[in-house]
Amino acid sequence: MWRVLAVHGFGGLTLRAVAAEMGATTGLLTHYFPSKRALLKHALEVLDRRSADRPRPAAERAGEASGLVMVRATLLDILPLDAESAASNRIWVASWDVALADPELAREHAERYRRARERMAGHIAQAKELGELPLGTPTDDTAAAAQSFVLGLVVQALFAPREFPAERQIALVDEYLARVGDGGTAGE
Amino acid sequence: MWRVLAVHGFGGLTLRAVAAEMGATTGLLTHYFPSKRALLKHALEVLDRRSADRPRPAAERAGEASGLVMVRATLLDILPLDAESAASNRIWVASWDVALADPELAREHAERYRRARERMAGHIAQAKELGELPLGTPTDDTAAAAQSFVLGLVVQALFAPREFPAERQIALVDEYLARVGDGGTAGE
Repeated sequence: MWRVLAVHGFGGLTLRAVAAEMGATTGLLTHYFPSKRALLKHALEVLDRRSADRPRPAAERAGEASGLVMVRATLLDILPLDAESAASNRIWVASWDVALADPELAREHAERYRRARERMAGHIAQAKELGELPLGTPTDDTAAAAQSFVLGLVVQALFAPREFPAERQIALVDEYLARVGDGGTAGE
Repeated sequence: MWRVLAVHGFGGLTLRAVAAEMGATTGLLTHYFPSKRALLKHALEVLDRRSADRPRPAAERAGEASGLVMVRATLLDILPLDAESAASNRIWVASWDVALADPELAREHAERYRRARERMAGHIAQAKELGELPLGTPTDDTAAAAQSFVLGLVVQALFAPREFPAERQIALVDEYLARVGDGGTAGE
């Protein structure tokens, strides 16, 4: 299912294609997943779990992660920096059209992004406490802006991978963070 | 077609639904649009034309538009600040899944976003000439970052319209631009 979604998107997701990829019958598959929507919902849950189970950045494990280090690690963790994360991002982007037309999936997506902004806001609040960011930095808006920046970079990198190789994506994140650190002084 | 796409997304776009919305027969519609893909391609061309035909910001018409004023106007022009622009954005987001699985549509999208970044880079270069931005501001990266920021904000605002009313979207753009203006000093 993952492979079908990553290559053909939601438009190409059919029970038959997934069954063929698995070497199973369509009948067996429909026993577990009665519809394309059920397949997609499962794919999104798998992505959520993979993301939760992923090893945390070394700095965090060592208890040395400061606020800004975690902001940076969280942003980089989202980006399509390698083939696997490009495939995951491809599936997230594929899910947006379906989710926007489906109240339950839309609510789940809105909730996912809200939680991600809250986690980001926590890192930003910590960065302010640590003196890495000016105290006047607006916590929630900076979190929403950082998440916007990284989601839009995902879209552009998926459409133009040659213009947005991993090094450039990382450099853009670092330029972005340098501005957050500097620009906030106006608000102090 | 526009109404079907804006409400039901690409997943809900059927020739039958569009024919019903038009009060036409499916046969008449298939005469012009043999497939869902042809319908979507036409919708994207209509969006491109609407965008090109849209009245330019008053400052630009008056020849008073400076670089940063145009950067701001361009960013605001993309955002879902009212029902019409939310519907257009809904269609763009709906198109991403199909386009990523379709080489021709993918190339057209990549080209659209490349041109948009180039226009943005032109405004940023002008802002540097006018002394509105530090000369050390990286033109292309700042354009790519601004476009990333606004595309990601579109996605978040579509999923969480109550958390991202027009006023907050505008405030986020203004905070973003304040940082671009301030943060660049490090590069001078």
